[in-house]
Amino acid sequence: MNSLLKFRRPLSSSLTSLSLQRLSTTLHYVFEEKKEGTSFIHPTAIVHPNAVIGQGVSVGPLCTIGPSAKLGNGCQMHPSSHIFGNTELGSHCVLMTGAVVGDDLPGHTVIGCNNIIGHHAVVGIKCQDMKYKLGDECFLDVGDNNEIREFTSIHRSSKSRDRTVIGDNNLIMGSCHIAHDCKIGNNNIFANTTLLAGHVIVEEHNEDLGSVPAVCSMLQSIRDSFTENRRGICKFRQWSSS
Amino acid sequence: MNSLLKFRRPLSSSLTSLSLQRLSTTLHYVFEEKKEGTSFIHPTAIVHPNAVIGQGVSVGPLCTIGPSAKLGNGCQMHPSSHIFGNTELGSHCVLMTGAVVGDDLPGHTVIGCNNIIGHHAVVGIKCQDMKYKLGDECFLDVGDNNEIREFTSIHRSSKSRDRTVIGDNNLIMGSCHIAHDCKIGNNNIFANTTLLAGHVIVEEHNEDLGSVPAVCSMLQSIRDSFTENRRGICKFRQWSSS
Amino acid sequence: MNSLLKFRRPLSSSLTSLSLQRLSTTLHYVFEEKKEGTSFIHPTAIVHPNAVIGQGVSVGPLCTIGPSAKLGNGCQMHPSSHIFGNTELGSHCVLMTGAVVGDDLPGHTVIGCNNIIGHHAVVGIKCQDMKYKLGDECFLDVGDNNEIREFTSIHRSSKSRDRTVIGDNNLIMGSCHIAHDCKIGNNNIFANTTLLAGHVIVEEHNEDLGSVPAVCSMLQSIRDSFTENRRGICKFRQWSSS
Repeated sequence: MNSLLKFRRPLSSSLTSLSLQRLSTTLHYVFEEKKEGTSFIHPTAIVHPNAVIGQGVSVGPLCTIGPSAKLGNGCQMHPSSHIFGNTELGSHCVLMTGAVVGDDLPGHTVIGCNNIIGHHAVVGIKCQDMKYKLGDECFLDVGDNNEIREFTSIHRSSKSRDRTVIGDNNLIMGSCHIAHDCKIGNNNIFANTTLLAGHVIVEEHNEDLGSVPAVCSMLQSIRDSFTENRRGICKFRQWSSS
Repeated sequence: MNSLLKFRRPLSSSLTSLSLQRLSTTLHYVFEEKKEGTSFIHPTAIVHPNAVIGQGVSVGPLCTIGPSAKLGNGCQMHPSSHIFGNTELGSHCVLMTGAVVGDDLPGHTVIGCNNIIGHHAVVGIKCQDMKYKLGDECFLDVGDNNEIREFTSIHRSSKSRDRTVIGDNNLIMGSCHIAHDCKIGNNNIFANTTLLAGHVIVEEHNEDLGSVPAVCSMLQSIRDSFTENRRGICKFRQWSSS
Repeated sequence: MNSLLKFRRPLSSSLTSLSLQRLSTTLHYVFEEKKEGTSFIHPTAIVHPNAVIGQGVSVGPLCTIGPSAKLGNGCQMHPSSHIFGNTELGSHCVLMTGAVVGDDLPGHTVIGCNNIIGHHAVVGIKCQDMKYKLGDECFLDVGDNNEIREFTSIHRSSKSRDRTVIGDNNLIMGSCHIAHDCKIGNNNIFANTTLLAGHVIVEEHNEDLGSVPAVCSMLQSIRDSFTENRRGICKFRQWSSS
């Protein structure tokens, strides 16, 4: 699974890096080629001087970066993406347009390396748990090589002694929701609009899962539900004769 | 319930207010402390001169405010949030990053006090009802102390003689949809991706609802559906023996 | 159906065009009336000089347009909307606030005339299919007169020899997802949060569909499911006696 996700990165990086720099206004400045290792910050981006920016970082137009943000080497922020609060990004993370990472709350959001945060996704924001008290520390830790797609929301923990955790190599498709204090392992795929309430645990995806009898039986049952005599997973073949 | 929502506000306000002002570009200006009562408008925000801005308002970078907007005292607009059309916000409302309130349509969007509009939420925009005729007045009225989370959409009415109405103290979680002409009372909690079609009425949440026999029975039935012999709310214990 | 969608456009165009130009900052410039045929580009918009902009186009504040974009006559981009990659828009398309069209990938996104892309919608971006290899060409073709609402995602094809296709006159409501290689015909209405996985085909909506016996029977069955003795589509009247 590691390799499945890895091949997506290199090309994406070089393509995007170029196009971010190409975005120019005829009024203010012209295209300038980025040198290896130097970082590019578009003149319309708003980067607090206390933010720590690695080498080879591209910050596109209309982005904002707050004072407690740290961006690892080679990170890319597409236009109109934002980083708030105590937020650390490992190297080679990509924020697509409209992505928001972090929130101005005590605690932190820590994102590993090679993660893609999709268009308009919000990652590391305040949870929805009414037990959370503003002022309390709250945490989100994300591993490496995750692809988080558009409109996904991932919330920080509801308590200072807990944390929301995402492992490595997960593909979290569009409009998923991962609530406070969830623990997501590695190598999982969440289909669109998968919604996890608070404290849900999803362990590591096992390639051999298909051989577990209970899983086989469940899958067969779903397949059967679409056969001729039945109209969905809620109907049983015996039903019409009951 | 009032008190549950209320405690969230004060701290949030002071935290955000500070951080909006801290966002500065090294090129254009330096950090400046906001004085009590004065409003702060980031130099990259685009505020129409006819807009009415109360005291102690913070408008973050890259926001836009149209000519017919009115913002009450202490409102805060996070980066890249927008107000369009005939839109009135009461005091101490907060628009998170990417939030959009109002639309350039006849009619109005009126939002009360102490409301939080979440990241990328769209509130007070044109409805989806094909009976709505562009040019007709349409309306949305929202009360006080509501928290509307990320990716939620709330539409204006489909007719000039109707309106979409949200009461007070509701928590509307992420990705909910409240369509044209809905009437939502007070103290309700909508879980993620709750979708209300047009003209749906949700009355006031009653703390004693749990004691209504029909509700108890429904909840018990859902709980039972997860017991050993059954696989979901669609299966009955008797099923396997039918 | 053609006529149903058509009446929405003209008024919308004139209203929006005006309001985009009215958005002005007290610092940089004042209101200026747009002359017939000339295009308006807000000084804070970032438009690559190689982009091809038709006549009578309005580009609002804080928008970005990449070097390979082509905008037909009369297109309107609301604040904070974006066009990336090899993307062509026919005449009189409207991008609402936060809308993103196209992606920096080989291949193209072609959008016909008179389409509305809703708030924060993402149209023509990379698919989620793990078989897609970055660097491969991928395609999205959209016809005319479609209304695509907020938070909808439409992905490009997963292979260079396939394409995602949307026809004409469709109303795609909020938070829908149309995945890679889907083929959507004409005159369809997708309700909120309709999710289509890859390669799904939805043919033309036929006004006479209601007279097809299988459809009638399905609709009647759903209606029946809400009658007194039953609690939903999963329960059968005979159930309690089984």
